[in-house]
Amino acid sequence: MNEADSVPVGSLVCPGPEERPDLWPWSAARTGGVLHVGGADLTRIASEYGTPTFVLDVASLRGRARVWASAMAEEFWEGYGMSGGDAFYAGKAFLSADVARIVAEEGLGVDTASLGELTLALRAGVDPSRIGLHGNNKSDREIRLALEAGIHRIFIDSMDEVLQVERIAADTGVSAPVMVRLKSGIHAGGNEYIATAHEDQKFGLSLASGQALGAVEAIQRAPHLDFRGLHSHIGSQIFGTAAFVEAARKVIDFAALVRERLGLEVPAIDLGGGVGISYTAQDPVPTSPMEVARALAGVVRERCAHHGLPIPRVTVEPGRSIAGPSMVMLYRVGVVKDVSLEGGGVRRYVAIDGGMSDNIRPVLYDAAYTATLANRDGPAEAAALARCRVVGKHCESGDIIIRDVDLPADIAGGDLLAVPAVGAYGYSMASNYNMATKPGVLAVEDGEARWFLRPQSVDHLLALDAGLE
Amino acid sequence: MNEADSVPVGSLVCPGPEERPDLWPWSAARTGGVLHVGGADLTRIASEYGTPTFVLDVASLRGRARVWASAMAEEFWEGYGMSGGDAFYAGKAFLSADVARIVAEEGLGVDTASLGELTLALRAGVDPSRIGLHGNNKSDREIRLALEAGIHRIFIDSMDEVLQVERIAADTGVSAPVMVRLKSGIHAGGNEYIATAHEDQKFGLSLASGQALGAVEAIQRAPHLDFRGLHSHIGSQIFGTAAFVEAARKVIDFAALVRERLGLEVPAIDLGGGVGISYTAQDPVPTSPMEVARALAGVVRERCAHHGLPIPRVTVEPGRSIAGPSMVMLYRVGVVKDVSLEGGGVRRYVAIDGGMSDNIRPVLYDAAYTATLANRDGPAEAAALARCRVVGKHCESGDIIIRDVDLPADIAGGDLLAVPAVGAYGYSMASNYNMATKPGVLAVEDGEARWFLRPQSVDHLLALDAGLE
Repeated sequence: MNEADSVPVGSLVCPGPEERPDLWPWSAARTGGVLHVGGADLTRIASEYGTPTFVLDVASLRGRARVWASAMAEEFWEGYGMSGGDAFYAGKAFLSADVARIVAEEGLGVDTASLGELTLALRAGVDPSRIGLHGNNKSDREIRLALEAGIHRIFIDSMDEVLQVERIAADTGVSAPVMVRLKSGIHAGGNEYIATAHEDQKFGLSLASGQALGAVEAIQRAPHLDFRGLHSHIGSQIFGTAAFVEAARKVIDFAALVRERLGLEVPAIDLGGGVGISYTAQDPVPTSPMEVARALAGVVRERCAHHGLPIPRVTVEPGRSIAGPSMVMLYRVGVVKDVSLEGGGVRRYVAIDGGMSDNIRPVLYDAAYTATLANRDGPAEAAALARCRVVGKHCESGDIIIRDVDLPADIAGGDLLAVPAVGAYGYSMASNYNMATKPGVLAVEDGEARWFLRPQSVDHLLALDAGLE
Repeated sequence: MNEADSVPVGSLVCPGPEERPDLWPWSAARTGGVLHVGGADLTRIASEYGTPTFVLDVASLRGRARVWASAMAEEFWEGYGMSGGDAFYAGKAFLSADVARIVAEEGLGVDTASLGELTLALRAGVDPSRIGLHGNNKSDREIRLALEAGIHRIFIDSMDEVLQVERIAADTGVSAPVMVRLKSGIHAGGNEYIATAHEDQKFGLSLASGQALGAVEAIQRAPHLDFRGLHSHIGSQIFGTAAFVEAARKVIDFAALVRERLGLEVPAIDLGGGVGISYTAQDPVPTSPMEVARALAGVVRERCAHHGLPIPRVTVEPGRSIAGPSMVMLYRVGVVKDVSLEGGGVRRYVAIDGGMSDNIRPVLYDAAYTATLANRDGPAEAAALARCRVVGKHCESGDIIIRDVDLPADIAGGDLLAVPAVGAYGYSMASNYNMATKPGVLAVEDGEARWFLRPQSVDHLLALDAGLE
């Protein structure tokens, strides 16, 4: 037992599915020491399908989507004297054809933000009238495809875009359904939010400066634009409901201004996404969809009554809170190396067969993750843990997946490491750095596994190289 | 003229190719107000090939590779009574089949760091005896391919890997040429370096702890490993030569220890890469390959004389300094939006048709870039500039390419923006975030253009989706 085997004060052991179910897929469980997801033994998954692999629990994805659908459903909202709303899944968190179909089956719409996402949602068979298109700088091609397909709504992000969508709608001979994305001045994350004039970012039209009202007026006058309502998105990884309530208040107050100045009713408001999830034991337990819906219903009803406005339909855009905890990353451990630290002591570096190409969040956002061995319960000798740093295999010293986590001190090449809560912004932000091929996304359900996204082959990657033709 | 048109003190205008040639491809020039690269008019390139597109100046890439080859050539080194060395191009900076062939034609080897990079170099026809394989956690498959192909050398990064390569070499029935990657304790970047016990990173075998000597001894005893020398890589974006000299000193001193303790000669040393380039006018002019070679020759001769050692062959691994300034990113401007700042004033947001998916460095490393209009020389009215923030089209407020740059105040949708020095770690780190397809890399030479890497299509991206089959 060397120095690394004595773990510093403050445990950083990964909590199991029983201890912190919010971190894990609903079906995750340890049986005979081995981690299972969707009824499938992860050691079998690793040997049959290889590593690294994103393992997606279909029941979790479906179930989490269903909870959001329920939270926005008429049955829930009629208790507040309201007719209910909608949840649109934010495809940017993670999208594949099967994922789009699953959330659609559960009653959600799908929000897209690019030609690729929109094309995928359409090819997956999602009803176009249940698809939204976001973006601060949409191409003509994206807008044209959206209009030709007859999607639910385009979120207008600038005055330039009012003219652009009007031009393309006129050219296509359709009426374009549009919502206006507001810059509410609120910026939220964690348990905190700023509600001053935080306007210095690229999205939306400012309430304070009059840009937003100008855009609604321009839409009202445009012959091929159909005003469908107002949108606000205030941030990400938000816990609690206070920031959402504050944003909703601003949006309804602006709806009153729109009616007063332009004589225009606001039929719907979209309050965006941003509900946080937990990644480690140090994170709080997330706010539930029901809590969010209840808070929104309360403030919308109150502000509408205050202004004497009809109650608009309310939409939310969950992404991370559906996809995030539904997936586990499965890595194979390779090199284990102890490194002497300047102040004394040793750091144990555990290298896995992926890295910053499949999870850029630790290095990009300083995001914390945790991990546990998938193939065994703990160290061979009880209580022997080592504080480890989990690193990738990229040619970059910053290629760190987990800065500090307590793992069995006898961890060695061949062990399997499971990282929970990688479902959002993992695969979707994956790169081919060092010409690493993208891992596949393997969906598991009732013990059966199938690819939602196949692992990328070197041939697929090299197919872009014109010098090999 | 609104508030954004008055530029704050301290110009952030992008310097042109005449002012700061180190930022630009060698062939870059403004003719009739329009930026040209490789003799090609960038407005023509944009309309024929689309945007965003990486524009690669073949003459620059070839020329920069040639300068490194010259700096390491016998003719240069014999002035120091030495037999010369080698430059191996660090493929991780940017690699395609044509790029590999061009640097090989100029006399460089190619260093790879993954199955993908190694496969590409071999398929491109690079002589295997001129290919190296790096990595802190190589897979058996990578090592096997390297040995079967007969590559120049494998860089051993851990004791685990000594056993791994010996096992695979024995199994393959070959002798594996290996160098040992040292952890020199030096960490360099910019004009500074730390030469204390900076050991807390994943790469290499520690000199201080005796790990490195242990690895060399294990290699000496392993029947299928052929010890070829020592390697050290100390960082990136290094200016000046002091850090390289200090690292070389440590490596030669360790070579003396290896001879003393193990009776083993060190035939070659590889001093890695890391020579910096300039990205903006605020960066210093880069250190030239000749300066680096001269400094290395001096210290190697001096330390070898001191220890009475034969002079080893010296290798360096330039990547960024070859690829970086050889490429320009060409974006089309879309939405331009003025945003009021809290303390007064306005920030002009210029959105382009790419973003953090094609250049993650600004958000990942807080890296600064600059940009100029490619389609015109300046504002329609002389002297009217605006301080702008160049942002991408991704669904993320952090999607910023340039935080502050002075551009013509009349910049508008349809203008073309050229960002210099994007050749290294631009394409190679590109992602498909928001299902953005990767831009192509268009090589220009003598006014002719051809794809080195084709733009990715939505179909290529969706080919991984098993739910669309």
